[in-house]
Amino acid sequence: MASLLLSRRDLDFLLYEWLDVPALTGRERYADHSRETFDAALELSEQIATRHFAPHNKKNDAQEPTFDGEKVHVIPEVKEALRVFGDSGLLASAMDHEIGGGQLPAVVAQACFAWFQAANVGTAAYPFLTMGNANLLLAHASKEQIETFVRPMVEGRFLGTMCLSEPQAGSSLADVRTRAEARDDGTYRLFGNKMWISGGEHELSENIVHLVLARIPGGPPGVKGLSLFIVPKVLVGDDGALGERNDVVLAGLNHKMGYRGTTNTLLNFGEGAHRPGGEPGAVGHLIGEANHGLAYMFHMMNEARIGVGLGATALGYTGYLHALDYARTRPQGRPLADKNPASPQVPIIEHADVRRMLLAQKAYVEGALALNLYCGRLLDEQNTGASAQARDEAKLLLDVLTPIAKSWPSQWCLEANNLAIQVHGGYGYTREYNVEQFYRDNRLNPIHEGTHGIHGLDLLGRKVVMDGGAGLRLLVERITRTTARAAAAGGSAAGYGRALDASMARAVDVTQRLWSTGDPRTALANASVYLEAVGHVAVAWMWLEQLLAAASGTEDFHEGKRGACRYFFRHELPKTEAQFTLLESLDRTALELDENAF
Amino acid sequence: MASLLLSRRDLDFLLYEWLDVPALTGRERYADHSRETFDAALELSEQIATRHFAPHNKKNDAQEPTFDGEKVHVIPEVKEALRVFGDSGLLASAMDHEIGGGQLPAVVAQACFAWFQAANVGTAAYPFLTMGNANLLLAHASKEQIETFVRPMVEGRFLGTMCLSEPQAGSSLADVRTRAEARDDGTYRLFGNKMWISGGEHELSENIVHLVLARIPGGPPGVKGLSLFIVPKVLVGDDGALGERNDVVLAGLNHKMGYRGTTNTLLNFGEGAHRPGGEPGAVGHLIGEANHGLAYMFHMMNEARIGVGLGATALGYTGYLHALDYARTRPQGRPLADKNPASPQVPIIEHADVRRMLLAQKAYVEGALALNLYCGRLLDEQNTGASAQARDEAKLLLDVLTPIAKSWPSQWCLEANNLAIQVHGGYGYTREYNVEQFYRDNRLNPIHEGTHGIHGLDLLGRKVVMDGGAGLRLLVERITRTTARAAAAGGSAAGYGRALDASMARAVDVTQRLWSTGDPRTALANASVYLEAVGHVAVAWMWLEQLLAAASGTEDFHEGKRGACRYFFRHELPKTEAQFTLLESLDRTALELDENAF
Repeated sequence: MASLLLSRRDLDFLLYEWLDVPALTGRERYADHSRETFDAALELSEQIATRHFAPHNKKNDAQEPTFDGEKVHVIPEVKEALRVFGDSGLLASAMDHEIGGGQLPAVVAQACFAWFQAANVGTAAYPFLTMGNANLLLAHASKEQIETFVRPMVEGRFLGTMCLSEPQAGSSLADVRTRAEARDDGTYRLFGNKMWISGGEHELSENIVHLVLARIPGGPPGVKGLSLFIVPKVLVGDDGALGERNDVVLAGLNHKMGYRGTTNTLLNFGEGAHRPGGEPGAVGHLIGEANHGLAYMFHMMNEARIGVGLGATALGYTGYLHALDYARTRPQGRPLADKNPASPQVPIIEHADVRRMLLAQKAYVEGALALNLYCGRLLDEQNTGASAQARDEAKLLLDVLTPIAKSWPSQWCLEANNLAIQVHGGYGYTREYNVEQFYRDNRLNPIHEGTHGIHGLDLLGRKVVMDGGAGLRLLVERITRTTARAAAAGGSAAGYGRALDASMARAVDVTQRLWSTGDPRTALANASVYLEAVGHVAVAWMWLEQLLAAASGTEDFHEGKRGACRYFFRHELPKTEAQFTLLESLDRTALELDENAF
Repeated sequence: MASLLLSRRDLDFLLYEWLDVPALTGRERYADHSRETFDAALELSEQIATRHFAPHNKKNDAQEPTFDGEKVHVIPEVKEALRVFGDSGLLASAMDHEIGGGQLPAVVAQACFAWFQAANVGTAAYPFLTMGNANLLLAHASKEQIETFVRPMVEGRFLGTMCLSEPQAGSSLADVRTRAEARDDGTYRLFGNKMWISGGEHELSENIVHLVLARIPGGPPGVKGLSLFIVPKVLVGDDGALGERNDVVLAGLNHKMGYRGTTNTLLNFGEGAHRPGGEPGAVGHLIGEANHGLAYMFHMMNEARIGVGLGATALGYTGYLHALDYARTRPQGRPLADKNPASPQVPIIEHADVRRMLLAQKAYVEGALALNLYCGRLLDEQNTGASAQARDEAKLLLDVLTPIAKSWPSQWCLEANNLAIQVHGGYGYTREYNVEQFYRDNRLNPIHEGTHGIHGLDLLGRKVVMDGGAGLRLLVERITRTTARAAAAGGSAAGYGRALDASMARAVDVTQRLWSTGDPRTALANASVYLEAVGHVAVAWMWLEQLLAAASGTEDFHEGKRGACRYFFRHELPKTEAQFTLLESLDRTALELDENAF
């Protein structure tokens, strides 16, 4: 039976028929690799995800972590899954050989990890956060810090978190209050409360490596005064031996609508519960330079944003495959032309509206996956591109696409999950089936790692205007390359290319019009609408790319790509017209209404 | 503190400043009423909903009904709430004096009931189903049946259900298999399984009155062979005394994502567990004539559809009020122009994107409530209109609007709940807050009482083409009356009126174009898109009506109506353009894709 997690056929298409990932093996970093090693990693991921992650996905939801006042209890299957994952080496699959990594291209490592997110996003969150944590440390921490904290993560002994938010500081990191006081031995002592910390407490690993944003007294106010610290749950000696418990205490678990398998915590730092060495405060180690914390954290956040987008895609994808399977096997009703109630019922995939809902899901999840992996490919280009220009351009384009790669799947693959429920009818609304959990799990994604609104501001307020609009120009240039190929291909591709050119031109005009006011409040009033419209343009581009890559394909699979591309250009891209018109009008409806009139 | 369930100010506006409901007291049926009696019913509803329904809404969700193999256990607060509701007389508020009812106008009774749906949709489902059940029996059952079954419902002693679906027959009622065999005493014995029966088993009332669709052997196949039966859980003697248990057995409870407070059951009829009188089968009483069952059931279904729409609206409305309250009190971040991190944080309602999300919610929930109550007013006109023509027209317009009044709130007030979560950020995703439950509860509404797709087929395949398109013409005529008033009013109303006229004309053209093909499969391929587009036109009409009614108002409240109307015409109605263009193209994308290519 075909997997209901992801489509390996689609991954092969994206990696090999479209993105030409094997060509990367010509670069020094990936010289040990080949299509065979890529395939092996993908197969291993599918196997472990299928055997060790998927089976406890429902149980992880129904029996969420509990706190007895002393310890957090998580179902035992999670620890076992993490053990198998740790043993597989997949956590470090994209890291340097030096630290014990596999130096897989990022795009392949992402494709691998998507299997785990599709199988069990709650359990997958632990290694997800740990990888981001480790990559940040590899980029910005000292050699000693890397030895002490990253190596055990790579070995599967430690897990990691990111601690940004506080009860009064969610989207507004300028208001982080946790303070870090320097000690003579070069360490710091931290005092404060951190909210929404996923994986913040559990017994799944020997230790938890918290990365904590805090202020060193006397530093500048706002985000410019944030420094980043390693604060382990258990202190680690210079020899790597685990010592006493640090003063990091669980204040409570949050009880979520979905994503329940991941503990989500409120943590108190330095409230005196453990007092390491008898002294108040949680022991922390400064990463890099003081007051540069947010820049370091963005290393992890940018990676996490693309990863959150990929997780949203994976949930949408598995929901689509479940809906497709159900639609092929559930008999109900008859064709419109068949008025004879004695004739047998047909599978619901024969009904037009069910087909429409399936095709919409396919267009959303395959379009989102293409965008996610395209970003992964850009990351490889940024890291190993042949020229400085190629690397710079890859970085610039990735900067522009990151808010979209996070937000678009969070919105539209959630909608795919909504449609997956609808295809199942009443059954889809019950916990006896799987799709309602996907819908609940996926609802987190427009919130964490920057809300939808924050990414709208990031795209319109920063990414498309930075460097004099260089990022937007580059996006146009890359899209134009694609549409030129589409024009040469002729047929429907040429028509879609013209539509895409027109939409992109519209986006550029609208961007200029919005900023022509000189009034950021008006320009940004509907930044979320801008994010959604430009997101649809970007995904239309991904669909045109896929159409061109599938053009000569003769399998049903390729026909499916053509059908979904057609769907996207007929049903979806035209939605942007009304959005651009609204933006062009410099609409201030929401701004102008008196607060008391709501 | 203002209620977070619904806005009484808005109800007063809709009933008194817009729909002129007090004028109904000039009609014989409502002659005993006055604005004072309407107000009293609204106040009583708000009080009982607030004191007896809202407090256990979360508990009802967290501690859903359980079945121990013998009995179903529901938290005790539900029974107490139903006792208070039963004592209030509200169940029969719109029924005839003769049966003990209050003869309130339907529109007022609906406004009253919305308080209960907003407070606790799970508990409110029991009286909701009971009212629909009783109204069906009052319209189609015999005098004796009404005495035996309806009177105890009015007295709060019995509750009711509707039993249509079976495991193999959900949307396809032609496939109902439950059979009913005639007995010499005039009763029937029923054999079969019914699925998704809300309120199908519990200990909340002395008895449960099931209305069951079944086939009398020898009847025509398909829906034309369906008859409707009263099948009580406990047999009732001619003297009204409760007798032995009927052979209706709970086979299992469904475990839903939301709406958990309402038991939802799989029931077995006539499987021999109780064998009344020692004979196999569940005792049933035929309602009206054999083989007319579906027509009778539609009496209840049409009422239930409008009621489901109202329930979706109520959930959206309370979510909006919760989000508004949160946005006014949660400090986070600073205005764009304020770069000083030392200045105090502002309530999030000051941020443009939060205002946009609040205004969208307001436009959805107040627009939906207006549509729901407009339909209630049409029901009153259908029942008591001054002339046969007025009554016929009201019925015709209500027929056209019913699929929209059910589906539009189910889609857009669910979206309002989605935005209510987003306004709350991470807090909204937790069960410590209320909005995630509203979102889960509301997700049922696009599924039950006819799925979204079924209503699309109903609107485009039946309602707008029946009687040579008379219903659509009537809708155009009524909308044109409004836009003529808007033109006379001038200003922004006139502009909105022109936009509405253009959209409605577009809808008419598209309808003709779709049916010009002579090919129902093509015409109906995107019926759901048609439903959504025409739904937006209908709600735009409701907003223009509200704008005109609020035109001379000087309160903040009236300013809010103007702002939300402006939002709807600028942000929402333009979305229909792409939908109409797609429909006009006779798009067959989903139809044509090979099944193996999905």
